[in-house]
Amino acid sequence: MPSFTPPVKDIQFLLHDLMKVTESDIPGYDELEKDFTGAVLEEAGKIAANVLQPLNSVGDEQGCTLENGVVRTPEGFKDAFTQMAEGGWMGLDCDAEYGGQGMPHLLNTATGELFSTANMAFQMYVGLSHGAASAIHAHGSDQQKETYLPKLYAGEWTGTMNLTEPHCGTDLGLIRTKAEPQDDGSFKITGQKIWISGGENDLAENIVHLVLAKIPDGPEGVKGISLFVVPKFLVKEDGSLGDRNAVTCGGLEEKMGIHGNATCVMNYDGATGWLVGQEHKGMRAMFTMMNEARLSVALQGYGQGEIAYQNALAFARDRLQGRDVTGVKNPDGPADPIIVHPDVRRNLLDQKSMVEGGRALVYWGSSLIDRYHRMDDQEADDMVSLLIPVMKGFLTDKGFETCVLAQQTLGGSGFTKEWGLEQFVRDARIAMIYEGTNGIQSLDLIGRKLPANGGKAMMAFFELIKRFIKENEGNEALKTGFLDPLKTASKDLQAAAMYFMAEGMKNPNNALSGSYDFMHLFGQVAMGYMWAQMAKAAMDALEGGASDTDFYNSKIETGRYYMARQLPMTGTHLARIQSGAEPVMTLDAANF
Amino acid sequence: MPSFTPPVKDIQFLLHDLMKVTESDIPGYDELEKDFTGAVLEEAGKIAANVLQPLNSVGDEQGCTLENGVVRTPEGFKDAFTQMAEGGWMGLDCDAEYGGQGMPHLLNTATGELFSTANMAFQMYVGLSHGAASAIHAHGSDQQKETYLPKLYAGEWTGTMNLTEPHCGTDLGLIRTKAEPQDDGSFKITGQKIWISGGENDLAENIVHLVLAKIPDGPEGVKGISLFVVPKFLVKEDGSLGDRNAVTCGGLEEKMGIHGNATCVMNYDGATGWLVGQEHKGMRAMFTMMNEARLSVALQGYGQGEIAYQNALAFARDRLQGRDVTGVKNPDGPADPIIVHPDVRRNLLDQKSMVEGGRALVYWGSSLIDRYHRMDDQEADDMVSLLIPVMKGFLTDKGFETCVLAQQTLGGSGFTKEWGLEQFVRDARIAMIYEGTNGIQSLDLIGRKLPANGGKAMMAFFELIKRFIKENEGNEALKTGFLDPLKTASKDLQAAAMYFMAEGMKNPNNALSGSYDFMHLFGQVAMGYMWAQMAKAAMDALEGGASDTDFYNSKIETGRYYMARQLPMTGTHLARIQSGAEPVMTLDAANF
Repeated sequence: MPSFTPPVKDIQFLLHDLMKVTESDIPGYDELEKDFTGAVLEEAGKIAANVLQPLNSVGDEQGCTLENGVVRTPEGFKDAFTQMAEGGWMGLDCDAEYGGQGMPHLLNTATGELFSTANMAFQMYVGLSHGAASAIHAHGSDQQKETYLPKLYAGEWTGTMNLTEPHCGTDLGLIRTKAEPQDDGSFKITGQKIWISGGENDLAENIVHLVLAKIPDGPEGVKGISLFVVPKFLVKEDGSLGDRNAVTCGGLEEKMGIHGNATCVMNYDGATGWLVGQEHKGMRAMFTMMNEARLSVALQGYGQGEIAYQNALAFARDRLQGRDVTGVKNPDGPADPIIVHPDVRRNLLDQKSMVEGGRALVYWGSSLIDRYHRMDDQEADDMVSLLIPVMKGFLTDKGFETCVLAQQTLGGSGFTKEWGLEQFVRDARIAMIYEGTNGIQSLDLIGRKLPANGGKAMMAFFELIKRFIKENEGNEALKTGFLDPLKTASKDLQAAAMYFMAEGMKNPNNALSGSYDFMHLFGQVAMGYMWAQMAKAAMDALEGGASDTDFYNSKIETGRYYMARQLPMTGTHLARIQSGAEPVMTLDAANF
Repeated sequence: MPSFTPPVKDIQFLLHDLMKVTESDIPGYDELEKDFTGAVLEEAGKIAANVLQPLNSVGDEQGCTLENGVVRTPEGFKDAFTQMAEGGWMGLDCDAEYGGQGMPHLLNTATGELFSTANMAFQMYVGLSHGAASAIHAHGSDQQKETYLPKLYAGEWTGTMNLTEPHCGTDLGLIRTKAEPQDDGSFKITGQKIWISGGENDLAENIVHLVLAKIPDGPEGVKGISLFVVPKFLVKEDGSLGDRNAVTCGGLEEKMGIHGNATCVMNYDGATGWLVGQEHKGMRAMFTMMNEARLSVALQGYGQGEIAYQNALAFARDRLQGRDVTGVKNPDGPADPIIVHPDVRRNLLDQKSMVEGGRALVYWGSSLIDRYHRMDDQEADDMVSLLIPVMKGFLTDKGFETCVLAQQTLGGSGFTKEWGLEQFVRDARIAMIYEGTNGIQSLDLIGRKLPANGGKAMMAFFELIKRFIKENEGNEALKTGFLDPLKTASKDLQAAAMYFMAEGMKNPNNALSGSYDFMHLFGQVAMGYMWAQMAKAAMDALEGGASDTDFYNSKIETGRYYMARQLPMTGTHLARIQSGAEPVMTLDAANF
């Protein structure tokens, strides 16, 4: 059975050595003292490791069941959910006015990481409730906020997001779910939604569905979509629960992974709902939630990578097989631990550098969200909006790859259920698909985010890297291993962006054919930038006399590995991009 | 539910346009007339598509069960196995003297591909029986051959290979299974073997286990390993079955995939066995089978990729979502089929180019095996021995990637069980692990195969490419799209080999740290060489007035895609290799 040690030290390194949160000008960050974040992370880590992680394989084996419209989550999930709720973890970064704890989003990202890493299927119930609450907080009326937020923050109710229908997921302009206005200001919602995570469950007494639907006679396509709140049980004026609403679970999907999370077909048969925000502005309302939601999926990518890596590492230290060619390391044993072998180390370092680099990226993104929300800093919002598709697409691809690598470390044991690695692979796989497939992320990146405001955010990103290189160019320890490769990789990214500008104008397919490679190229450069900064933070700590030299040196060496072994991928991505549309578009669809 | 169309046309293209088998000097190839191979492939395709493929999801869902020592395979497997046996498919390329059909190995590879693609878990029973038969054919006594081969060829009995033990898989020198000599010339075999595919099953009346064990007081390590044949039921002099032997199945593994294949713990409790080949030469006996076995695993990689691709393609043509940015393609529908989108095409072309290139590589390898076996051509054996770890490692990694890409084409549907793509991913995963993990393949490649005979085979490989480029340098249609990128990639491979020679001498870890990248770099170049040859064969066919221009043009365009979009990976692999041991070896094992 796999185990999980919350990576509190790595998180503390990011918060305090790299980001130096208490020195930040973001309101509320001054509260994030090292002792405080340490205590919060230790507490969250206990729940993650002691409560959620042991339920991870239980959830995988039992899955969810549907009987007479009632969904049962796996044994132990309800108790665990109650513990999460009572511990105040569900509203950690939520508005204090409605019972939240008002902490920075960054801290919630860190605790959420621990929960998600320990049990991704479970944490989805929590995360989607959080997302539904955020949508209501941003777009709901005061009455809606008062009705729903305290219950969602307290974990008394859960929340869901209802977008996909059988015939459309990516292309939401095609949705058919109808919302007919009623005299009392409510709407009757009718239609079928599919792949609704946690759409029905037994964790809480009510479920708050957020539903995209079309009001008759509205504009065509996405411009005619509105957002509605549809509670499972109607809520009386005094806040108590009233009649059962006409929304039911019509079936559960059998899936490759995340069996512990109920993926529901939801049937709305004239269910009573209320408009959230303005008529026909439903897509905009959803989109303002997108950054947060997609960042949490990016986190799932490296989170499953983290637990997979931990277990691969333990195996590699334990398993005796073969001898170190440069000299026996375990003379008293029948063989050396496999971590002596260069190819095993390569495999482990690919995992380690990806997980730690991914965490740094997501925490950066999280702090940009705080900066925007707490300081109304538009540039921060622009930057995180640019980075979100990169983080979601790149980190979930790499997170899955990391799980596959970790599984490989175990050889045949990695393929057996007993060791648990194969579950991480199966669970991590979904993150590449939901919240917009990674292909869609790449289109969002090059079609919307890159050209926004004349490419201002992209320029700002290049500027950050340029400034970092310039500020540190006298630092010999950083130069060869970090600054030089970062400069090369950054130039590849610039060349790719230039190619899109020049050739995409002539033929949009020249850009579209390279979107996926661009997303990865960008991801590599962003992660390289993170590693360069982490290496510098570690060097500074060592210079400042930090006692834990092994830890800081490990950061530097892992970064060096990343720069030498992963970052060169930018050259290949650039070559692919520059090959343009022709190789991709020539073959007739009939002749594939 | 997924479907499968046997790719007979693609196979015929390889046999007749590319390889021109009937013109070959390999004895027996003259029989492989186009009509004949077409008829054989059509027949095999019927079994694959109509019998085996419908059982693929059945096998996945039901798995195998163990009760009172009896393993039950999934419903329908036994009937299917009987059909395979009665059709003569199990002994297609086997020695006619013992009831085989005596056809070239190449033809068996092609039919085996169809079976494996349709149902990998099922075909493993067939493939391992074939492997056991080959080992007995190569190393057994005449009596052993007479006893076992006709039964194995006829599918009346199945066969297994028993190598792994709980504490060792890769490092077989550590095995503990004992073989104690008896007065009658037999041995008493005692020990536990794990991960034995088909170790116990209900498909046939007897099971022929080939077992690696140590005879007491033999040499230490791998030099003291011998090979034994241990039948489940002892065989009487007249060939009928006698007593049950003391070998039993102690348990089945729960696995990520290939549920239809029973992965057994096998307990040998003083079971009666007989030495196959010479004492202490068991590893050598196994190794002579390795090429064939590993080639069939390479085939599994692209085979699962093939069926995954077929179903992804069907989905991409059918699913309407979004509009072609360069102009609406399906004006009467609510949206265009997703195959119009460049990123979907990229995804599909990655799949298609990998599957078809993989097939070409494996068929080349197969014909080299024929050349060696039928002409005793040592150079052919050297070449295929060099290529085998590349094919096994590279094609199974790429085959798995292909399945993941195909799954991605379907978006959320790819994650559900209903569409079947996720099974291909889970099944394909094992091919990267068994028959020597891909990490081990890379060590075999650089530690054993590359330096063998002073690098003669590697030089011969470079020579082939050089000659092909030279012979075609006047061919303008080939030059830019094929010959130039092939030359660049081949230079990267040469540079990597040079690096190993120069730096590996100084420190073996400089080579070992780059072994995996070298395997992939080699794989890319080999596949690029295949695509260049296929493009030329297609161009020749078109020039010769072939009527099916769409088919041949599709080959050329797919090849062009491969050269432009996949082959540039060689640069990244080379950069990683040239970064040497330092990034990989510096971090202390304790500080990971």
